[in-house]
Amino acid sequence: MSVVSVAEFDRIVRAGLPLVTVFGIETLELGPGTARLRLSGAREHVRPGGTVAGPALFALADVALYAAVLSRIGPVELAVTTSMTINFLRKPAPRPVIAEARLLKLGRRLAYGEVLLLSDGEADPVAHATGTYSIPPDRPSP
Amino acid sequence: MSVVSVAEFDRIVRAGLPLVTVFGIETLELGPGTARLRLSGAREHVRPGGTVAGPALFALADVALYAAVLSRIGPVELAVTTSMTINFLRKPAPRPVIAEARLLKLGRRLAYGEVLLLSDGEADPVAHATGTYSIPPDRPSP
Amino acid sequence: MSVVSVAEFDRIVRAGLPLVTVFGIETLELGPGTARLRLSGAREHVRPGGTVAGPALFALADVALYAAVLSRIGPVELAVTTSMTINFLRKPAPRPVIAEARLLKLGRRLAYGEVLLLSDGEADPVAHATGTYSIPPDRPSP
Amino acid sequence: MSVVSVAEFDRIVRAGLPLVTVFGIETLELGPGTARLRLSGAREHVRPGGTVAGPALFALADVALYAAVLSRIGPVELAVTTSMTINFLRKPAPRPVIAEARLLKLGRRLAYGEVLLLSDGEADPVAHATGTYSIPPDRPSP
Repeated sequence: MSVVSVAEFDRIVRAGLPLVTVFGIETLELGPGTARLRLSGAREHVRPGGTVAGPALFALADVALYAAVLSRIGPVELAVTTSMTINFLRKPAPRPVIAEARLLKLGRRLAYGEVLLLSDGEADPVAHATGTYSIPPDRPSP
Repeated sequence: MSVVSVAEFDRIVRAGLPLVTVFGIETLELGPGTARLRLSGAREHVRPGGTVAGPALFALADVALYAAVLSRIGPVELAVTTSMTINFLRKPAPRPVIAEARLLKLGRRLAYGEVLLLSDGEADPVAHATGTYSIPPDRPSP
Repeated sequence: MSVVSVAEFDRIVRAGLPLVTVFGIETLELGPGTARLRLSGAREHVRPGGTVAGPALFALADVALYAAVLSRIGPVELAVTTSMTINFLRKPAPRPVIAEARLLKLGRRLAYGEVLLLSDGEADPVAHATGTYSIPPDRPSP
Repeated sequence: MSVVSVAEFDRIVRAGLPLVTVFGIETLELGPGTARLRLSGAREHVRPGGTVAGPALFALADVALYAAVLSRIGPVELAVTTSMTINFLRKPAPRPVIAEARLLKLGRRLAYGEVLLLSDGEADPVAHATGTYSIPPDRPSP
């Protein structure tokens, strides 16, 4: 199971990353190396045609992967994204988007994982992201 | 030179992508296939340690590449990002970030380019992004 | 099930992409939007320290994704890779590498999928790739 | 200037990465954080339609970035690629391809750079790659 609780993770991101509140991102579930989050389809992220904006989906994927990392290493606030690739696959409906993140590698210095983004209630992903987090050196190896 | 003016581009993004206003992104310059934009270091994008948040840098890169695309194809609002890769290279100082975008390919269906992000006044980039825009089929080829 | 047989796919890639023979890549299984291939750990792809070379892993991922695309659209030889991102996660042992590819999107013009690469018999991936194929316009939509 | 000579770099890659010989990759020039290499358009890398195969372009970009890294840190054979993103922009003519690599960041643990690939004698790039190298910890920082 996750070494960080949903409440603890929410506290960390709300304190450290005010965008999470702006975007209405909330954590639904944390497992060992996995995380499930939701982005509520707020007006501010909408593009012409009524779709959720790319940067809001990026933020969701970024925070979801951060959650998956912390679910394994604990509340290390200074873990930072070093790279992220996101592919936008379908126009999301103007409603909540769910992120499902999972780690594919957790090393001493780098963690790597992927995130699937889905419009709530639909099977086909709206986006897919992969990313790398750098883990500060001054901590015991996992 | 750009087939879209700075004022016209600003109007398009402000109408279509309210995040641009949230993040304080403004367009400085448009050339043929190039664009220069600025993200003002607003409080809301700041992470622990006083740095500009990743999603704000992503939004800046995304809009900068969109500007470089429109500088060549004109005000085609429905051009959409299909993929974006961003690498975070250095912790940005809590001050404005400049984006310098340029197209490397403009095809009939896809445009591809890169964006360098720099803390205003510094030489070393804080991030580098590459991305692809899909261009709607119902327009004359460039 | 796949609209292309393993034998038919092997014939297409052997004729069109001689590298497949150089690298010793063979197709094990094709499903609807999925593919399983193997790279035999030939001497030529080995790096200092006895590991399989990155370009050989890239070739394997590229062909595996091509297989997953053709499993849905049939023998369209002119589908071409437009982008590929590969993350190298662990040093592969000097033995066969298995690729497991699956499509996440099949549109009229673009297909997108991911590939997990594993040392034969081990659980942790040695690499993970995502990529986009461009599909020629002159065919019926799927 | 480069801390590694062209001859020294060629010796390292030929010994360590036999694919370089298979693909006919040679180093033309090394600067401080830059490299220029050539892939001769050998028969083996050709795809249907007479174009240079993607994996051969990937190998060229990978080795070019490795050269740019070693031009700064010296002959550290165990620097390894951790990720690479390549975008294929135009069908290359069946003739030599030139790679122009430059580092955008050289940290203690990671180096990041980009590579432009051009058909010899043409202005428009055939591909563009970005990638990250991991640098072994047991060396003095640059």
